[in-house]
Amino acid sequence: MLTTRTDLAMESFEDTDAGAFPGVQVSQWDNDGISITEVLITDNEAAHQLGKPKGSYLTLECPLLRERDPDARLAMAALLAEELARLLPEGDARAPVMVVGLGNRAITPDALGPGVVDRTLATRHILNAPFARGGLRSVCAVAPGVLGITGIESMELIEALAASIRPRAILCVDSLAARDARRIGSTIQLTDTGIQPGAGVGNHRKPLTRQSVGTPVISVGMPTVIYAATLARDAFAWLSTQSGDDDPHDEALSDMERTLLSADIGEMIVTPREIDSIVQDAAGIIASGINRALQPELSDAEIAAMMN
Amino acid sequence: MLTTRTDLAMESFEDTDAGAFPGVQVSQWDNDGISITEVLITDNEAAHQLGKPKGSYLTLECPLLRERDPDARLAMAALLAEELARLLPEGDARAPVMVVGLGNRAITPDALGPGVVDRTLATRHILNAPFARGGLRSVCAVAPGVLGITGIESMELIEALAASIRPRAILCVDSLAARDARRIGSTIQLTDTGIQPGAGVGNHRKPLTRQSVGTPVISVGMPTVIYAATLARDAFAWLSTQSGDDDPHDEALSDMERTLLSADIGEMIVTPREIDSIVQDAAGIIASGINRALQPELSDAEIAAMMN
Amino acid sequence: MLTTRTDLAMESFEDTDAGAFPGVQVSQWDNDGISITEVLITDNEAAHQLGKPKGSYLTLECPLLRERDPDARLAMAALLAEELARLLPEGDARAPVMVVGLGNRAITPDALGPGVVDRTLATRHILNAPFARGGLRSVCAVAPGVLGITGIESMELIEALAASIRPRAILCVDSLAARDARRIGSTIQLTDTGIQPGAGVGNHRKPLTRQSVGTPVISVGMPTVIYAATLARDAFAWLSTQSGDDDPHDEALSDMERTLLSADIGEMIVTPREIDSIVQDAAGIIASGINRALQPELSDAEIAAMMN
Amino acid sequence: MLTTRTDLAMESFEDTDAGAFPGVQVSQWDNDGISITEVLITDNEAAHQLGKPKGSYLTLECPLLRERDPDARLAMAALLAEELARLLPEGDARAPVMVVGLGNRAITPDALGPGVVDRTLATRHILNAPFARGGLRSVCAVAPGVLGITGIESMELIEALAASIRPRAILCVDSLAARDARRIGSTIQLTDTGIQPGAGVGNHRKPLTRQSVGTPVISVGMPTVIYAATLARDAFAWLSTQSGDDDPHDEALSDMERTLLSADIGEMIVTPREIDSIVQDAAGIIASGINRALQPELSDAEIAAMMN
Repeated sequence: MLTTRTDLAMESFEDTDAGAFPGVQVSQWDNDGISITEVLITDNEAAHQLGKPKGSYLTLECPLLRERDPDARLAMAALLAEELARLLPEGDARAPVMVVGLGNRAITPDALGPGVVDRTLATRHILNAPFARGGLRSVCAVAPGVLGITGIESMELIEALAASIRPRAILCVDSLAARDARRIGSTIQLTDTGIQPGAGVGNHRKPLTRQSVGTPVISVGMPTVIYAATLARDAFAWLSTQSGDDDPHDEALSDMERTLLSADIGEMIVTPREIDSIVQDAAGIIASGINRALQPELSDAEIAAMMN
Repeated sequence: MLTTRTDLAMESFEDTDAGAFPGVQVSQWDNDGISITEVLITDNEAAHQLGKPKGSYLTLECPLLRERDPDARLAMAALLAEELARLLPEGDARAPVMVVGLGNRAITPDALGPGVVDRTLATRHILNAPFARGGLRSVCAVAPGVLGITGIESMELIEALAASIRPRAILCVDSLAARDARRIGSTIQLTDTGIQPGAGVGNHRKPLTRQSVGTPVISVGMPTVIYAATLARDAFAWLSTQSGDDDPHDEALSDMERTLLSADIGEMIVTPREIDSIVQDAAGIIASGINRALQPELSDAEIAAMMN
Repeated sequence: MLTTRTDLAMESFEDTDAGAFPGVQVSQWDNDGISITEVLITDNEAAHQLGKPKGSYLTLECPLLRERDPDARLAMAALLAEELARLLPEGDARAPVMVVGLGNRAITPDALGPGVVDRTLATRHILNAPFARGGLRSVCAVAPGVLGITGIESMELIEALAASIRPRAILCVDSLAARDARRIGSTIQLTDTGIQPGAGVGNHRKPLTRQSVGTPVISVGMPTVIYAATLARDAFAWLSTQSGDDDPHDEALSDMERTLLSADIGEMIVTPREIDSIVQDAAGIIASGINRALQPELSDAEIAAMMN
Repeated sequence: MLTTRTDLAMESFEDTDAGAFPGVQVSQWDNDGISITEVLITDNEAAHQLGKPKGSYLTLECPLLRERDPDARLAMAALLAEELARLLPEGDARAPVMVVGLGNRAITPDALGPGVVDRTLATRHILNAPFARGGLRSVCAVAPGVLGITGIESMELIEALAASIRPRAILCVDSLAARDARRIGSTIQLTDTGIQPGAGVGNHRKPLTRQSVGTPVISVGMPTVIYAATLARDAFAWLSTQSGDDDPHDEALSDMERTLLSADIGEMIVTPREIDSIVQDAAGIIASGINRALQPELSDAEIAAMMN
């Protein structure tokens, strides 16, 4: 059956009753032009119904990002850095944080993760360099799905590397699927629940979570696509409402779904035409937030000088 | 207003009466597992109503291409070579054919043209090489929209080059928009009408036609996307039929369109998830057809050896 | 015969008598840690003997660039911007400056030009955008030798574009060959004499000069290689001096040259192992100098925001 | 001190007495236009003196490769496949062979390994696909040094993956340094001794050998550079011979070496100008040999169809 598919926790209960999920706490506030929504899923029953594991989901929304507003970008990077710093475990500063950019560079909307890795300051190999003066935190960065690794699943590579490198935390970046087109390129979600199978644009088959890998896994994502099936289902529901039909007949709905599936449309992805610049911009903002959170003793200018 | 947007001539009158367009002749036949449709638009009135210039449009369809069937790929390349050779003007063999790959390599569904240029055997600079033995026809190849050219429109670059190089024909390759999802990656259209503004994935703003450039312009394209507006309109029409409503009310239709537009959905593009391999495969097939048509005295093996 | 091959005017008379060339004026001064040498070749006889056309050659040298010193990079970009602004013709601000990045991205030491084009702010297509507020000067940028253009020589493409776009000046960037290894990655040469056949790493076959293209041609280059023949000749001369032999016998010299040539060594290029980061750094510095010179009304931050 | 640096075993004793190394056996024969040299280093004393570990080194030389002769390429790939098949351990066909492409894609002469990985048929993830019909041997392929992995040494990544994947053999591909310019692009070396620190263009700091990784390590390499120090030393020796001086004075030699080192020339690499096409050609030949050796039940056409 077609389902409403979204990787954003805040979208997973949007068309249901606020009080329908006793195991979910939602708070919302604004900060510097950014709308912040925190969703806490605290019980198994709610987790099952929403299709999202228990944990904390923080969403930062800023429509001005789509207009490439420079101030909005700076504000988003600063807020992301702050929230990431809060989520990162303390622990031994010599143990690296491993930044993992999921996704496939050859598919434009799936290229967010590799784009962030390109812009992340990796330091694990230069911790003892004279210019480091003891101020660097250990960071390594991997984009397992880029060309050059084949016959090995991304999660398998990450697990093998984590077993060898023993990071104090894994920070995953991935492209997400949303439900509302306006969230593409304007919304960042942070969660401490890791990566679930079937999430994202690339649909990973294995989970990457604290349980699977033995290390805290924080994930950061931005929606870059909507699934056509989600769009169709929402459009159908809306049309039914327009025609005064509060509860669309199950029969008509499943007729539509069968038709969409037979034409291979349900699995198609919907994306803005300017998706390449959206992904490039987002990679810059997210990498900036990550670099600030991971290197609190470096200024932006010092980070930039070490990157080139 | 939202319109049904397709670059395939054969799709532009699909849901209208067969006899509605007196200035259009359609023939259809099969050849080696490929379904061929020829649309001749012979009068201005029909051209205006279909939104396509007068001329000949040949469509080659083969659903097995989507399953990456090796025999289907060979058959398609062979048939394309044959039809291209028929369309190419005779004339001085020393005057080059200029192959133009339109589109932007950084946007996966728009990367067909650059991919074909990468695989086209350019010979203009080696016509006098000893191994050529007089058997080479002059070919040059350009992908004007790839990284490295900015501030200059693709059509402007092509016109400037054509004025300098004086090709005997221009052969344009572009990604197209279709209406039916099953035609993505399975259908090639050839036409002698050139490139029109607003066609393709990248929406060129200027035409590239015999009139604009003073040289015959043949174009070859394959659909890689559907516009979301087209999908929505077709879905709405289908839903109306299901509910026994033969003639969907204009009012409901324009309500829907306004809503889609306000959510920025109409201009979004819908594409299969495996679009990168679809585009890579298509680039290989089209380049093979072009190389055979342009170098009738070389075998496939000789072309391959000269490409590496 | 093997010759000492250098694209730097200041190196072309280094081992000859200062007074040997009456048609050459040399001045040298320092500025902010950068050593500046100006060579003016004012007569045809000197031009012929040095193998460089008449005109002005300015060389900016800063050994700290090789150590990736951030202050040195800023100083170099600032000085380059200043000198470029002096060389650029006034004229109609709506007529574009065309930045041309020569070279082949697939050969590391020849990738400087394409790297600069990637980082140049092209504005010709956005002059009327609302955010431009009338403050933008028209700039377009082309890298003719990158993948995607074949069968057409770089100079032919540039000439065709110049005839169509009518730029007020062409600003060429190219990788150069030097004689002294210490100048690789540390030295920028500016000249108003354009590009000569046989210069650079890629050895262009046609000139690009004010005469050939009808527009002032300024070129900016940085050495990235030494030719093995140059290195061998200099080593031989040095060895002869060591053995007290002031004037190495012509016979021994030509023996050596014949041997080098027979082993195909003379045409080989010598390059530091870290050539990729040298070229990336240099591309950043030169693009920064160009962007400042061409957009005097924008701050660095505004340029950066428009680039992403 | 400068040393003659070559990764080819056959070059490491070229200017010494044949009988000088009792622990070295050399045989040489011809096959289909290819000259084959086998060097067996059988004792520790010889291994120490030559700077190469004990083991077998097979060199395939074919000068026609530099002329891009199609027959020579086919012959080389066929012979390489045969010799690789001989070196590969039997063992469980479900245990993968791990192909490792060492080197950095951003440095042209160091891009051989990544280029081979791009062209290697990886099958580990599709062994159970219907079209495989049980005929596929398990292969995975990794290019650890390409962009997208930072802060982690190549050897560390390989060791971590090998511990997780448990391959029956590792097959390393790397760019080599030679002593004689004519061997660049014309010579392939196979050895069962793995990769040693300091070998290759990229100078790995850790070994990759059966001892370090617990799995047989076969390596395949082609020279793409000469070190400038090697070239200089050989040139000096040759010049001394020319001047009738059989035994160049140690003093003059070390003067020269000090001078070269002070000008940072010794560590520079010397490479032909057409190095990009040499590396692309070599990657095609080596990948073809590897694919044939690893998939003995597939024809060339079947391998090609599965690669696209």
